[in-house]
Amino acid sequence: MPSTRSRATDSFPNGFDPAALEKLPGHLRETIQRRTEVLGPGYMLMYKEPVEFVSGHGAHLVDRDGNDYLDAYNNVPCVGHAHPHVVKAVSCQLAAVNTNTRYAQQPLVDYAERLLATFPDELSKLSLACSGSEANDLAMRVARFHTGGEGIIVTRWAYHGITREVSSFSPSLGKGSPLGPNVRLIDPPDPRLVAPGSTLADHMRHQVRGAIDDLERHGYRLAALVTDSAYSSDGIFTDPVGYMTGVVEEVHAAGGVYIADEVQAGFARLGDSMWGFRRQGVLPDIVTLGKPMGNGVPLSGVVFRPEVSDEFGRNVRYFNTFAGSSIPVAAGAAVLDVLEEEDVQQRVLENGKALRAGLEAITQQSPYVAEVRGTGLYYAVEIVQDRESLEPDRTRAEDLINDMRGRRVLISASGKGANVLKIRPPLAFSESDVTRFLETFAEVAEVRL
Amino acid sequence: MPSTRSRATDSFPNGFDPAALEKLPGHLRETIQRRTEVLGPGYMLMYKEPVEFVSGHGAHLVDRDGNDYLDAYNNVPCVGHAHPHVVKAVSCQLAAVNTNTRYAQQPLVDYAERLLATFPDELSKLSLACSGSEANDLAMRVARFHTGGEGIIVTRWAYHGITREVSSFSPSLGKGSPLGPNVRLIDPPDPRLVAPGSTLADHMRHQVRGAIDDLERHGYRLAALVTDSAYSSDGIFTDPVGYMTGVVEEVHAAGGVYIADEVQAGFARLGDSMWGFRRQGVLPDIVTLGKPMGNGVPLSGVVFRPEVSDEFGRNVRYFNTFAGSSIPVAAGAAVLDVLEEEDVQQRVLENGKALRAGLEAITQQSPYVAEVRGTGLYYAVEIVQDRESLEPDRTRAEDLINDMRGRRVLISASGKGANVLKIRPPLAFSESDVTRFLETFAEVAEVRL
Repeated sequence: MPSTRSRATDSFPNGFDPAALEKLPGHLRETIQRRTEVLGPGYMLMYKEPVEFVSGHGAHLVDRDGNDYLDAYNNVPCVGHAHPHVVKAVSCQLAAVNTNTRYAQQPLVDYAERLLATFPDELSKLSLACSGSEANDLAMRVARFHTGGEGIIVTRWAYHGITREVSSFSPSLGKGSPLGPNVRLIDPPDPRLVAPGSTLADHMRHQVRGAIDDLERHGYRLAALVTDSAYSSDGIFTDPVGYMTGVVEEVHAAGGVYIADEVQAGFARLGDSMWGFRRQGVLPDIVTLGKPMGNGVPLSGVVFRPEVSDEFGRNVRYFNTFAGSSIPVAAGAAVLDVLEEEDVQQRVLENGKALRAGLEAITQQSPYVAEVRGTGLYYAVEIVQDRESLEPDRTRAEDLINDMRGRRVLISASGKGANVLKIRPPLAFSESDVTRFLETFAEVAEVRL
Repeated sequence: MPSTRSRATDSFPNGFDPAALEKLPGHLRETIQRRTEVLGPGYMLMYKEPVEFVSGHGAHLVDRDGNDYLDAYNNVPCVGHAHPHVVKAVSCQLAAVNTNTRYAQQPLVDYAERLLATFPDELSKLSLACSGSEANDLAMRVARFHTGGEGIIVTRWAYHGITREVSSFSPSLGKGSPLGPNVRLIDPPDPRLVAPGSTLADHMRHQVRGAIDDLERHGYRLAALVTDSAYSSDGIFTDPVGYMTGVVEEVHAAGGVYIADEVQAGFARLGDSMWGFRRQGVLPDIVTLGKPMGNGVPLSGVVFRPEVSDEFGRNVRYFNTFAGSSIPVAAGAAVLDVLEEEDVQQRVLENGKALRAGLEAITQQSPYVAEVRGTGLYYAVEIVQDRESLEPDRTRAEDLINDMRGRRVLISASGKGANVLKIRPPLAFSESDVTRFLETFAEVAEVRL
């Protein structure tokens, strides 16, 4: 077992160091030893002391010893761990039948109509896939086909997925995973990077224009700009908004399409809208959906303007066996039920505001916190060596995360420096969960911040 | 709605022609109309009159009106539609918790150990993914990384999946989906293509050697030979075996790896072994798994020789959110339970022999049947214009398929000419299912063959 971080773990925030295996308690040590034997070195765990859960409800997870953890990290179980309505819907479908899209399936059509109704009218066609990676892979296949271009623009530390194609435009995977020669990087919308006298909108537009020029100089016409609407792995940049209008104009002028990756930001995560791009007042050509879509049952999707996708559909065979089959569709429909019935978006807004206010109050005096960012139930606390240099402090961030985990509250990190606390609970996060989170965070901050 | 076949449907066997929509009964017509509105032209249906199912059990599916269909086509529900043991295992896990592989999960480790125990000792590392496409995409990423090569060899009408990378080596997707410049095609192991005086082994070896030479002449070193162990979309070629030894020697001599795609052939489909490559007496470097793995819950996997995969794992971050999470693992483990407890492989062998004998008896006098191929529960009946020219007869094949569907038995087609009946039932196919199948097939053959 390697005693130092591997090249792959180096860029992975808050990873368990296999060299520390001997320090772990017996059962956990044994599970991880066996795991390494069968899964190999690519499989990484989180936390200095990894954790195993045997049940969950709402934003809570329970370990083997019956200890309750507050989950402030997992976005996949968006309506809550083991939500009874989703469990029932999927279990009933499992007991009935599971057919694929080569058969007529009224529930699939019902689901597609309901999901598309949450989008602007222009975004009227849905394709389903199994994972966010597959969604972004299909989105880029369609973008390439439609535009005839190959050039791709993403943000500097973006993550969009792990197929060969999508990993080629996911710089946050680190040096072991090379970018394509057709890929250009721009800064995320961080107002601190804007030159005095300029605006964020001009800064972003200028960067995209420059990337397009450089691509064309190398013989690549633009296929697509892809942005995560929350810039999750860049370190979470949700505000201010309004800078996308000019960016999208540049992309269209160059013949490209704008792909909004809503795998992280979508399904009401940002509180004030179901989809992150809506906050920007722009219309994407393609939108990709993933993680929370089936509350954990593998399901992802791509929403298209038909003028972008129909010609691809008429020319290129694409059949995804599991995607759109009865079980994921039952899960997806149950998630929409809960989002509506529990008025989740409103809860996200209210509890998010309280969470943000608490985070700001706790960290405002700390010399090690550059800023608190985010909205809805998605927050970043940027940990730095000092407020002047803004140099990332990965060690302090990881200590904070592990202190929280020691007090049974789960968060993790993001950003190129692995120094941005990522607070991204299930949307089931309640008022009392906010209180418990902030009490624990205040205790940890007392020592570390 | 287009009144002729699109370029995408042209290569798709047994597809529903949207121009025939008006002829369909009311409810079905309405569902398909709505479906086309929301899913677009890329989503294709099977049969002249598509069918919708609301429940299933064993190898049986039941439509809205309560009619029972015999399913002789779907391989995903391998242990049977809505198998109670799988339903219970997945439902229990849904109600408990669903965490991903960044947490310690003993059930994942247990499953990985059980699954790997069905492989030769050398194939000792498992990675999980969501779909066969993702599995083949990862396999090729690892093959490229390990070998430093880019060249890929596949069979002439192979299908391996729908990511950008995998579609570039899936010629059966048709002309709308271009092959990569680094991809070379060889004939499937069809003994009829072997020149007099030669052997199938020499023919296959010679083709692979030629493809390697041509790749190298174009500056591509070999990364991998990928073969579906049942050559499903080529038209199903399972016998004779024994030709792979020399093929794999050539691949290794050129520095490449051999990837056995067991998405179709695996999990006891071929009866005499759990994995199709075992029948050849060779050891793959990488094996990919998919469709039946979770009996419909999205789950796929890649099994590696560690010397091929470990360096990739140490250098390249790969995290697949849904893959290896608790729900698919519960499904995968339940499938292994049933395969063991019901001695499925033995059942496949016995019922498969009866099915094959019946198919041969029914078709042996027909001028329109070139041959019956296959083993286990996977059979091809090749429909031709006559036994001399062996020209494909797509129309007759599709008429047969639709006649069967009219009698409530489901099969479909395969092969470049879309003329090979594909008979691939759930492995739950029973003795009485074989009887019903053959009775129906005999009725249809009476008219068409």
